[in-house]
Amino acid sequence: MGKKKHHSITPLSQLLRVPAGPVSLARYDSKATPGYPGKGRDDADKFTTAILPELSDLQERLYASSQTDPANAPRILIVLQGMDTSGKGGVIRHSIGLVDPQGVQIKAFKVPTAEERAHDYLWRIRNALPAPGKIGIFDRSHYEDVLVVRVDGLFPESVWSKRYGEINDFEAELVASGTRLIKCMLNVSYEEQRERLLARLDDPTKHWKFSASDLDSRAKWPDYMEAYEAALTLCNTEVAPWHIIPADHKWYRNWAVTELLREVLEGLDLQWPVADYDVAEQRRRLAALD
Amino acid sequence: MGKKKHHSITPLSQLLRVPAGPVSLARYDSKATPGYPGKGRDDADKFTTAILPELSDLQERLYASSQTDPANAPRILIVLQGMDTSGKGGVIRHSIGLVDPQGVQIKAFKVPTAEERAHDYLWRIRNALPAPGKIGIFDRSHYEDVLVVRVDGLFPESVWSKRYGEINDFEAELVASGTRLIKCMLNVSYEEQRERLLARLDDPTKHWKFSASDLDSRAKWPDYMEAYEAALTLCNTEVAPWHIIPADHKWYRNWAVTELLREVLEGLDLQWPVADYDVAEQRRRLAALD
Repeated sequence: MGKKKHHSITPLSQLLRVPAGPVSLARYDSKATPGYPGKGRDDADKFTTAILPELSDLQERLYASSQTDPANAPRILIVLQGMDTSGKGGVIRHSIGLVDPQGVQIKAFKVPTAEERAHDYLWRIRNALPAPGKIGIFDRSHYEDVLVVRVDGLFPESVWSKRYGEINDFEAELVASGTRLIKCMLNVSYEEQRERLLARLDDPTKHWKFSASDLDSRAKWPDYMEAYEAALTLCNTEVAPWHIIPADHKWYRNWAVTELLREVLEGLDLQWPVADYDVAEQRRRLAALD
Repeated sequence: MGKKKHHSITPLSQLLRVPAGPVSLARYDSKATPGYPGKGRDDADKFTTAILPELSDLQERLYASSQTDPANAPRILIVLQGMDTSGKGGVIRHSIGLVDPQGVQIKAFKVPTAEERAHDYLWRIRNALPAPGKIGIFDRSHYEDVLVVRVDGLFPESVWSKRYGEINDFEAELVASGTRLIKCMLNVSYEEQRERLLARLDDPTKHWKFSASDLDSRAKWPDYMEAYEAALTLCNTEVAPWHIIPADHKWYRNWAVTELLREVLEGLDLQWPVADYDVAEQRRRLAALD
């Protein structure tokens, strides 16, 4: 499949990938639209829809590989992190919602349950890893264990400071065993978050999306940015790099994650499985059953 | 929400619901299109898409209820049964694929694993029941335990003959505890199955969808029809009725399941959750965080 005009010319993964070294989020424009091939909001539906036929074809090849050779079928895992209202749910609805739901495995990580707390923090993560041929999506992830845990001091620094290395080891293991990781930090600005929280308070059909704890987190914004910068700096490895997705424009955010997924699927060079039966013989059998 | 012209005038659930009494599948036309408001294949995309805004709104209300009051949130369970190529996967892709994947829980039941076989046949079914606020989809189900099990004699009649009553008890329990069941038998004809199997053999990108065992089942078609008729007759209760979906036209099948789902969601009369916080107070807190 050659480059089409609705794709980014430079691979988007390259444009959004966080360079090695210390990350300063203040230097990332959350209103930017890197790689976007169109003009803006008005043509975003068109450009996102244009990815769809190729995305569907690639996803079906991935799924097919798991039906015929599960032991060797690749897996994809999209990790979505971001502050409240950054659009983790929106991405799942609008980007992941474009592909066949049979090939998708979504897991939202909430405050750990009593059972989850009785285990190592990676236990519930391992339990939710995507099956062969599946596109897994984590709505929040093990990164909460170096984000909210660090900001709220749920564990002492001696505990969470070791986790960056543990997470790198864990992710390297995942990649080595055939999972392609797509780590996305949805970067929403403080100002845009205010507008989105206000919209939830102003609209009774959105009241259920708001929680008083959202404002508790907002009050700790600088601490969260520092914790994100640490995770983006310390867990940005060659095999499992971070992408920062400018997320003030929902249309860009949704297009970008869709296109990132397409690029990764394309890179797998997935072939249709070859029949493990004699096609001519089966055709004769079918004819005999007329 | 009033009746729109893209809906069936008589509720579709009424048109497709199997009447009480013995079922003879020979009397069901698999090319019929009951309740379809348009002309046919050419306008099916338009009519299915027309359901979407209402379906999305209803599904979000269902999901919202689970986020605020999980103990009382309803659940929906769509049971899809049908012969090979009848389109269980197609319905999931094209009908269920229309709703937010966060609200959907899909389970495909294959040949039981060793662990599943070590338990009662309903064990794996119970384990896969949808969470509150979710739309569960079973691709095959506990009905396999009175279909393939009966046709292939995997258990003696003394075992499977008791299961019809057990299934009725199980489903009544599900409904009593807040699950709405939508049982769909996708009714494809013997002739149409031949065309679809041939299409899989003729197209190398579809070879992975074909299995030699599909022809073994086809060879037992009359036995399968008899087993389906027994299930449709004996497990067709007031609280958990069967629907027979004519499935020779894929466009009708997909429209019909989408519309059935919309009708059931509409019937739940779902309201947006009321805020469990003081909206004005939270607005003041937000303003103070500017």
